[in-house]
Amino acid sequence: MRQSQLFTKTRKSAPKDEIAKNAQLLIRAGYIHKEMAGVYSYLPLGLRVLNNIMRVIREEMNAIGGQEITLTALQNPAPWKKTDRWRDDAIDVWFKTELKAGGELGLATTHEEPLTALMTEYINSYKDLPRYVYQFQTKFRNELRAKSGIMRSREFVMKDLYSFSRNEQEFREFYEKCAEAYKKIFNRLEIGEKTFRTFSSGGTFSRFSDEFQTVCDAGEDTIYVHKEKGIAVNKEVYTDEVLAELGIKKEELSEAKAIEVGNIFPLGTRFSDALGLKFKDDKGAETPVVMGSYGIGPGRVMGTIVEVLSDEKGIIWPKEIAPYQAHLILISGGNKDVIAEADRLYDLLAEHGIETLYDDRDARAGEKFADSDLLGIPTRLVVSEKTLAEGGVEVISRKTGATTLVSESAIIQTLVGKQGA
Amino acid sequence: MRQSQLFTKTRKSAPKDEIAKNAQLLIRAGYIHKEMAGVYSYLPLGLRVLNNIMRVIREEMNAIGGQEITLTALQNPAPWKKTDRWRDDAIDVWFKTELKAGGELGLATTHEEPLTALMTEYINSYKDLPRYVYQFQTKFRNELRAKSGIMRSREFVMKDLYSFSRNEQEFREFYEKCAEAYKKIFNRLEIGEKTFRTFSSGGTFSRFSDEFQTVCDAGEDTIYVHKEKGIAVNKEVYTDEVLAELGIKKEELSEAKAIEVGNIFPLGTRFSDALGLKFKDDKGAETPVVMGSYGIGPGRVMGTIVEVLSDEKGIIWPKEIAPYQAHLILISGGNKDVIAEADRLYDLLAEHGIETLYDDRDARAGEKFADSDLLGIPTRLVVSEKTLAEGGVEVISRKTGATTLVSESAIIQTLVGKQGA
Repeated sequence: MRQSQLFTKTRKSAPKDEIAKNAQLLIRAGYIHKEMAGVYSYLPLGLRVLNNIMRVIREEMNAIGGQEITLTALQNPAPWKKTDRWRDDAIDVWFKTELKAGGELGLATTHEEPLTALMTEYINSYKDLPRYVYQFQTKFRNELRAKSGIMRSREFVMKDLYSFSRNEQEFREFYEKCAEAYKKIFNRLEIGEKTFRTFSSGGTFSRFSDEFQTVCDAGEDTIYVHKEKGIAVNKEVYTDEVLAELGIKKEELSEAKAIEVGNIFPLGTRFSDALGLKFKDDKGAETPVVMGSYGIGPGRVMGTIVEVLSDEKGIIWPKEIAPYQAHLILISGGNKDVIAEADRLYDLLAEHGIETLYDDRDARAGEKFADSDLLGIPTRLVVSEKTLAEGGVEVISRKTGATTLVSESAIIQTLVGKQGA
Repeated sequence: MRQSQLFTKTRKSAPKDEIAKNAQLLIRAGYIHKEMAGVYSYLPLGLRVLNNIMRVIREEMNAIGGQEITLTALQNPAPWKKTDRWRDDAIDVWFKTELKAGGELGLATTHEEPLTALMTEYINSYKDLPRYVYQFQTKFRNELRAKSGIMRSREFVMKDLYSFSRNEQEFREFYEKCAEAYKKIFNRLEIGEKTFRTFSSGGTFSRFSDEFQTVCDAGEDTIYVHKEKGIAVNKEVYTDEVLAELGIKKEELSEAKAIEVGNIFPLGTRFSDALGLKFKDDKGAETPVVMGSYGIGPGRVMGTIVEVLSDEKGIIWPKEIAPYQAHLILISGGNKDVIAEADRLYDLLAEHGIETLYDDRDARAGEKFADSDLLGIPTRLVVSEKTLAEGGVEVISRKTGATTLVSESAIIQTLVGKQGA
């Protein structure tokens, strides 16, 4: 992509009412646009990042047998009334609306009800189980306050997977498998070291659940981290009784603010009982399906990554999700040979499948470098009169700042090697 | 994908209240699920088709310089009030809802207002133009009646592109370019021959617009087709005056029912005037941006394809958008050698990147063939005792029914050749 053609531009400042660092940086860099409090559009570079995050999650969900679907935002009240979650005091973030033809509708905040109802059409026998179904779908949550940027918004894409198992043991096996998949996801997103599987309250569904919490000062949650074991306990279940159960001592834990980037929890037969999702076991007896729920919000993950992986100059994207792998910067000084050289390199990168943002704009070097730091693409390639004279391209790592002069013939290998690393 | 693992199954009948052929077939085949009238979820096979349709559209939009974004469903009333489209009598399909924190919101039926407002932040000078911005985004339309299956639904994904040009001439050039891109899209989707660029009313925006109408008895529109010129006139502008303007005689036209699969229309400066989207021209004078709008509904296109490309047995997917390229059917009769052979072929197809649905279920041959006809995957491969004895694989075209026995060593070449064709 030639930056001269990109419709977005960097901005000196974010809207004054925007207090979250993630939204400030993402708006300044032209990744997102604030429509209103808690409602953000994704612009070309931001959508590329979001799609990359979803790709990583999708790959790991497919690897554990997930089947992708898309349910709807508009909700028929019927199944929600059966589970007693239509009431505003059961789910306090409902948006409700009305059909012109008559009748109330809701905008889905989550999808246990419609999916459980749907599965009754496809699950009859133990031979139809287990099944794992997921989607990337827009959720609407009527939050009273929204001040955490894209980490807590009123409209956002959620990856929600639901497991359907024959019994508790089969459910547990998948639950642990999914917890492992989540670890892989956060490692690939380069927040693995700061993200802890956190023992948490199960809410209305079960006694306990597991959250994945990323340590960060901007977090809304408080957790107690056991560094040695690589786990944590949420403040809400931080009692002597729970610690004893987990075999953890208070003095081994350190308190930290954290952001919940994912959660997995048992649903038991709460929804299958209410909505009649049963199967005939191998003896012909009707048995309710044992369910579980597994969420990750790609937008929240994106916001968290910006909070955690950024410096005073801007964002530092992990390689797997950066909008482009390389940021090619032309400092021509009006020299046509330099322009031709940069154009040639841009074509060469494209031929080798290296996605590149090419700053071909007519702007000062200082402005280009500042924009490049803000955008946070992992590898910067500079072509100028100086590099041309030295017979190479300047390669700069956004993360470490390390600068090397690489001969043009070696540039592709250098970048492909970096991608593999 | 092994069909024994797929959670969906084919059904003998669609819901009784479902009268549209497209929804009947898609529900019976397990591609979609009806949540309520006019609201459909996409199941694994259906989502693959929808994603393929979106891929084709995306490729053609990128080829003409489109930049992809995602705007939001939730709408702040402010810009809609400025264009006087917040009123229910201006847009009669609004869903409205309310913020818990206070204030009315709408669910977007279209996105001229928020995008025009957004672009004011990025367009200042003639150097920032032209720009072409598009999205695949969920629209909500509060239709009084919904009885056309996924061809007219209350919640659906829409590709909407908006053009921003310096003047009428620059706008017209892109308008024609986009019309050509639409032709390419409908040709790739194999409904090109039945789809006509149709002279239509411009509604509130301009005198005329262009619709792309696919001739089909299930269509809601009436058009008059000029076969020789490959164009049509919508009944709503079918007057002597218009025909004279187009240089067409009544007797050259034939009446047909048709489905609107796409539309492109000039917006002029209606939105840029109301929302202050101006630029400084090369003499420094402030000028409103000239806009255009270009829509295609991937779900409606999918429904239209099912209406047009199906027979009494089921769906016949075009190659570019089929959920899988090959449907491998194992008729084992309990013979382990046959199973091993089919498994081996399945692995071979995967190695060569040929996406295959593998019917490895323990079911009768007749049931498998009937399901395969209903699902409509372009190429069926049958492995049985008979084909094994004959030293090959039976290859059947869903479209023509043509059957050939292909030796195993030639099977990949046969399929790759077919994909290229």
